[in-house]
Amino acid sequence: MLPPLPLLDRFVLDWLAEDIGFTDRTTQSLVWQNEQSLARWILKAPGVICGLTIAERVFHLLDPACQFKSLVKEGEWQNPGKVICTIEGKTAALLTAERVALNNVMRLSGISTTTYILADQIKDLPTQLVDTRKTTPGLRFLEKYAVLVGGGKNHRSRLDEAVMIKDNHIQAVGSITAAVHQVRRYLPITTTIEVETETIEQVKEAIPLHIDIIMLDNMDQQTMKEAISMIRRQSPHTKIEASGNITIDNIRSVAELGVDYISTSAMVTRSGWLDISMRF
Amino acid sequence: MLPPLPLLDRFVLDWLAEDIGFTDRTTQSLVWQNEQSLARWILKAPGVICGLTIAERVFHLLDPACQFKSLVKEGEWQNPGKVICTIEGKTAALLTAERVALNNVMRLSGISTTTYILADQIKDLPTQLVDTRKTTPGLRFLEKYAVLVGGGKNHRSRLDEAVMIKDNHIQAVGSITAAVHQVRRYLPITTTIEVETETIEQVKEAIPLHIDIIMLDNMDQQTMKEAISMIRRQSPHTKIEASGNITIDNIRSVAELGVDYISTSAMVTRSGWLDISMRF
Amino acid sequence: MLPPLPLLDRFVLDWLAEDIGFTDRTTQSLVWQNEQSLARWILKAPGVICGLTIAERVFHLLDPACQFKSLVKEGEWQNPGKVICTIEGKTAALLTAERVALNNVMRLSGISTTTYILADQIKDLPTQLVDTRKTTPGLRFLEKYAVLVGGGKNHRSRLDEAVMIKDNHIQAVGSITAAVHQVRRYLPITTTIEVETETIEQVKEAIPLHIDIIMLDNMDQQTMKEAISMIRRQSPHTKIEASGNITIDNIRSVAELGVDYISTSAMVTRSGWLDISMRF
Amino acid sequence: MLPPLPLLDRFVLDWLAEDIGFTDRTTQSLVWQNEQSLARWILKAPGVICGLTIAERVFHLLDPACQFKSLVKEGEWQNPGKVICTIEGKTAALLTAERVALNNVMRLSGISTTTYILADQIKDLPTQLVDTRKTTPGLRFLEKYAVLVGGGKNHRSRLDEAVMIKDNHIQAVGSITAAVHQVRRYLPITTTIEVETETIEQVKEAIPLHIDIIMLDNMDQQTMKEAISMIRRQSPHTKIEASGNITIDNIRSVAELGVDYISTSAMVTRSGWLDISMRF
Amino acid sequence: MLPPLPLLDRFVLDWLAEDIGFTDRTTQSLVWQNEQSLARWILKAPGVICGLTIAERVFHLLDPACQFKSLVKEGEWQNPGKVICTIEGKTAALLTAERVALNNVMRLSGISTTTYILADQIKDLPTQLVDTRKTTPGLRFLEKYAVLVGGGKNHRSRLDEAVMIKDNHIQAVGSITAAVHQVRRYLPITTTIEVETETIEQVKEAIPLHIDIIMLDNMDQQTMKEAISMIRRQSPHTKIEASGNITIDNIRSVAELGVDYISTSAMVTRSGWLDISMRF
Amino acid sequence: MLPPLPLLDRFVLDWLAEDIGFTDRTTQSLVWQNEQSLARWILKAPGVICGLTIAERVFHLLDPACQFKSLVKEGEWQNPGKVICTIEGKTAALLTAERVALNNVMRLSGISTTTYILADQIKDLPTQLVDTRKTTPGLRFLEKYAVLVGGGKNHRSRLDEAVMIKDNHIQAVGSITAAVHQVRRYLPITTTIEVETETIEQVKEAIPLHIDIIMLDNMDQQTMKEAISMIRRQSPHTKIEASGNITIDNIRSVAELGVDYISTSAMVTRSGWLDISMRF
Repeated sequence: MLPPLPLLDRFVLDWLAEDIGFTDRTTQSLVWQNEQSLARWILKAPGVICGLTIAERVFHLLDPACQFKSLVKEGEWQNPGKVICTIEGKTAALLTAERVALNNVMRLSGISTTTYILADQIKDLPTQLVDTRKTTPGLRFLEKYAVLVGGGKNHRSRLDEAVMIKDNHIQAVGSITAAVHQVRRYLPITTTIEVETETIEQVKEAIPLHIDIIMLDNMDQQTMKEAISMIRRQSPHTKIEASGNITIDNIRSVAELGVDYISTSAMVTRSGWLDISMRF
Repeated sequence: MLPPLPLLDRFVLDWLAEDIGFTDRTTQSLVWQNEQSLARWILKAPGVICGLTIAERVFHLLDPACQFKSLVKEGEWQNPGKVICTIEGKTAALLTAERVALNNVMRLSGISTTTYILADQIKDLPTQLVDTRKTTPGLRFLEKYAVLVGGGKNHRSRLDEAVMIKDNHIQAVGSITAAVHQVRRYLPITTTIEVETETIEQVKEAIPLHIDIIMLDNMDQQTMKEAISMIRRQSPHTKIEASGNITIDNIRSVAELGVDYISTSAMVTRSGWLDISMRF
Repeated sequence: MLPPLPLLDRFVLDWLAEDIGFTDRTTQSLVWQNEQSLARWILKAPGVICGLTIAERVFHLLDPACQFKSLVKEGEWQNPGKVICTIEGKTAALLTAERVALNNVMRLSGISTTTYILADQIKDLPTQLVDTRKTTPGLRFLEKYAVLVGGGKNHRSRLDEAVMIKDNHIQAVGSITAAVHQVRRYLPITTTIEVETETIEQVKEAIPLHIDIIMLDNMDQQTMKEAISMIRRQSPHTKIEASGNITIDNIRSVAELGVDYISTSAMVTRSGWLDISMRF
Repeated sequence: MLPPLPLLDRFVLDWLAEDIGFTDRTTQSLVWQNEQSLARWILKAPGVICGLTIAERVFHLLDPACQFKSLVKEGEWQNPGKVICTIEGKTAALLTAERVALNNVMRLSGISTTTYILADQIKDLPTQLVDTRKTTPGLRFLEKYAVLVGGGKNHRSRLDEAVMIKDNHIQAVGSITAAVHQVRRYLPITTTIEVETETIEQVKEAIPLHIDIIMLDNMDQQTMKEAISMIRRQSPHTKIEASGNITIDNIRSVAELGVDYISTSAMVTRSGWLDISMRF
Repeated sequence: MLPPLPLLDRFVLDWLAEDIGFTDRTTQSLVWQNEQSLARWILKAPGVICGLTIAERVFHLLDPACQFKSLVKEGEWQNPGKVICTIEGKTAALLTAERVALNNVMRLSGISTTTYILADQIKDLPTQLVDTRKTTPGLRFLEKYAVLVGGGKNHRSRLDEAVMIKDNHIQAVGSITAAVHQVRRYLPITTTIEVETETIEQVKEAIPLHIDIIMLDNMDQQTMKEAISMIRRQSPHTKIEASGNITIDNIRSVAELGVDYISTSAMVTRSGWLDISMRF
Repeated sequence: MLPPLPLLDRFVLDWLAEDIGFTDRTTQSLVWQNEQSLARWILKAPGVICGLTIAERVFHLLDPACQFKSLVKEGEWQNPGKVICTIEGKTAALLTAERVALNNVMRLSGISTTTYILADQIKDLPTQLVDTRKTTPGLRFLEKYAVLVGGGKNHRSRLDEAVMIKDNHIQAVGSITAAVHQVRRYLPITTTIEVETETIEQVKEAIPLHIDIIMLDNMDQQTMKEAISMIRRQSPHTKIEASGNITIDNIRSVAELGVDYISTSAMVTRSGWLDISMRF
């Protein structure tokens, strides 16, 4: 679910320009243009790999003849010491590309790893782990890809892709009912509507509107239980999303309440990079 | 140390385009164009704020007449509950800008906070905490700014800004000595040279070259001690950088060995986002 | 439902650069820099106006102090002779901006006008007129805006925004059922699914999958009638879209069959420009 | 007369990004990466094909190994049922590229077809059909190419490429004579000058200035006749352009008056798309 | 004859980004944000000033409130010591903008000065000094502006703006006659045609084609004299351009032969920068 | 020391777009698409060649199959008549690419030639010739490359790459000492510091700060001599740069004073283009 390669390459070129500036002075001064090397990437910590296609483009753009071989399946758990990929090509290209390639894969693998660990808690339940719009500026498409690779699902990508009616929107119009009616007038026919609710009263107001998703935001589990039961009975096609303060410790108990989705930004905002090193 | 505003705005526009797509359907459908609001940002966890200038530009671009007031000094430790800033302007602009503005500040504040905590361990020592090129693609200038705000120092920003001679460069030329001589031929007169050393033998070879910085890479503390003592005696103008597996637990003991710089990517690769929420 | 102004301005600047090249030689040679004029836009043919916000930005970028006054409500039917707007500002700016401003409004008004006429045929019925992805390269967001202004609804804007399973997709997987199951695995939770059906057999296969929209593609009205009846009975939450060879002559009879949506590219592919002229 | 391919590709990438967003979810989810197909484009209505080079680049960018074969000569009249081209390559690439490729060719072929029909009325006369600056924002170079392919000629592409002195320019300076003298001072030596005239008096004033083109704007045929006769006698090198309210019904009678050029925006502003469909 | 300001600003921002990188470390570290200064630009060598509008935009973008006052008329000869302009605004902005502003004006003024000196040799003759396409990549529009300011005229700006038939084009088609006939088929009606001739025989072939400009390329003065006389007699509307090895020593004698244009790249390729310094 | 090819190509495409506009009308009208030619570049004046890699990319982008053979070593002195390179490929591509390719190489070779001549004066001395930030907007990376090729050294590329404390910075803080202390607080550890001094008193103040480079700006040779002697004695690691009014006549006598660097913008601001012509 990555963009086509020529569109991806535009990003990669920007990242290379950022890292290189005009030229990699060290490598250009020291490495003979035609020298060839074989490099391996070694995993240094346990986790899930994501982003090798991007790494391949980084190397490819600096040496179109280089051979990039992926040795793992993205999305599967790997142990330290695993050789993730090999790259054979011009030594100078490998050295200049190294940092941009690794920065991408280490970041995304960190996100996939955190996603995997969280999703693993509920893998035998029908509830799905979902991301948010709390993503790194400029890199949303990649971070959502990493969540997918790690076993999560994506929420909307942009403000024009789905409607999410929050507190302040409701205030502006006066009621959930008014908001939903008004928003429907101008909406593309493919656009789903979600409403954030914080109380049982709001849930009660939302149910008869038969919107696509009702979010239970920051509710305690007892309230959620009551809300879920009401929604299931009265609007069986409406999906239910739980949100707010989800952690590895409570994700399973929330899922067991029977929500369809549990959303959290933790995959992006609480993940470190997965350690990988390049060896010649 | 941010770019001039019109250059910064180019980035901000890209981030808004990423988040919005064509239009914020929810807000455009529901909020009256001229409605005004006052929003506050509340800190939800302890830490150091960074990036309010960026937040201001996000709001400013969507409502040039809005009033953004910063209520904290960037770089200082803040406690939860602190009101960080207020924004007064068009409700629609505040709602559409919220996520891009918060995503930037929460991320950068996370980096500044991690930096602050690490730097705090050695604040009474002359050693300085330094970042690396392990940064998020496209956002290096901001992440280095966040390290600075948090009390750290920056290493080079680009491959053309300083020379760092590593293992593979040395192999390509045959020796540290040959590498340094060769690299000096084509270097701008303002470009500093650093050599990565992993053994005492390499340190011995590097010392008489009087390069700007010798990095002691992944050495145990006993070896570092010996290396530092040799360098200080024989090349007093050369700076010493320790690198590799720096944690909050060992940073002070490494600093006490007397190195000038301790470099680690932890500020970027091991930091979460600092939790902040916007309230109307 | 236009992008925020600074994002819109990026497009406007590109269009100005295309029309001007380096400079408007005629105007720059002949018109005194500070000369002021008042221009009016006169409608020359009956129709619906769309795009004045864009026109305003064109004039504003060439003369930030100019006064643009809109005198019509976008989306309402207007007769020839109507003064659409007035612009007061530097004569040179008005002359240089004229063509880019008019080209946008005349094109978009043509689309809104065609939309209005088609939608008018079914305005007393619940069926809605919907656009397609047959839009002018680079201008989809504007053309979809013009459809909205003219009284139509939008279908998806991008290939990542909704799933549309067509013949060739079905062939690739073997069956509609397999396609829907497979596509659901990787889909954002806000993404709707639509399947194109061309026969009653395909409709029968699609119904139990409870997808969001079933498209009846190029079916005769008798077949459509049968399909609609089956879908309404067995999957009441599924929306029904009729597509293929819709004209002003048959749109009402198709709507009367009871479909939710009638989609056609005619608003874009069969509309001329609405004639407007600028007078000083 | 298209731009060199790497410059054309920049446009094509922008159009693909617009249509795809991040990814073609339907195709990416359902079609096996290496599946190959053969697609044909079938003409559904009579007309003139234009833009296959662009279509080829769209497919090429998504599958560099695909084989695109053009089966028609651009600019010649074709009948419905004609196979325009075949594309053999990755099924996924064909499906994702289809819309952008077709949108371009259908639009441009519509313009070429309208041009062909108008030009056909005067093909045995020396008068030439000419376009205007009323073109779709961002696509002028393609629309002018389509006019050329359809048998028309192009007028200027940009405001810096030729001088066109209109009413308001004349007012600003006081007279046609003053305007022409003033504009000549700063003009590149390759820049032609055209003056719009609306009365015989203006024609009389323009003749002795020996400008390159005199436009007879919105004159009745009797006035045009008189103007043409005067210009031919007194300034034989000056070309004559008729403009204003040209239709298929009057184009021949205007041409028979003996003007060099008849300009109209109808090729762009009054043309629909030519219907083409892609079949596997 | 510069682009409208918002289009010019796009270039200025690129140049600032090139010069600044992320930030002006010296100024940002040392100068208090609100400190104000008054700077003057002093001319250090005699010459003609060009480009102050660009300088103004550089300062304006870094300090929108700064006051830029031009004290000279562009295109007039100035002596050393002349105060060219004053800028009053934030000290930090003045220091950061200085180099980009001066680099533009010093370069362009150098070109205007060289143009002035050459044009001055023939100012009492009807012959005009004309530039070429030998211009600095990316800066053609500015360099042609500087030629205009210095008293020269511009030749075509782009390969699509006028036709210049050279040796290799003639060879490709077989003869000048064939080339002119073929090129006329596809040309915009505003596009002028020029043919390069190197011998009297080529001139003889070109004359009856009544093209817009005949270039006499690298001919000795005796041959030019003969060619001019033939062209004037047989094709009085054709302009004559002399080209090749024009210097300050021979420009007048060539002009006295009676050509319309003398073209040379010397204004761009043989000019130094005009020395200007900024003082506080 | 050029950027990686895909980054270089972005610039080349911009330059081609500038020169071509939409299309090379002359060549496209006259040259058969598949015609092949062999072109040679002949040096017309003595000098040093620079920039053939860029020329190669220009031709390569317009004809990926063309063969470009460089026949000289960049940086070595060449005599008129030398064949610099041959290009074999499509005639149309060679003709369309010619100007952009030559403009780059002629300009850069002019800079390399001027550099070579200046550097040659001091080639037996340890002093090095250094460039400045007086470079053509948008082309700094190429002009610094040309200086390197010609035998010079580069100074900083951007305002964020090194600190240069000038008069106005010193005034803003009060003293050289204060300025250096303050600037050091926020500096990357790889950033060198240079101070401009104009008097012996300033040199005396700078010496004990042990900064990286002291610039002696516009001093007479007697003062420089005194300054050099003081610096060498008291701060042997500090480099010394002489600047101001360096010409071919005085460069050697300044170098003989024993400075490390002599900086001048003359390589860029006082160089003409090196004459080269392309022959078929």
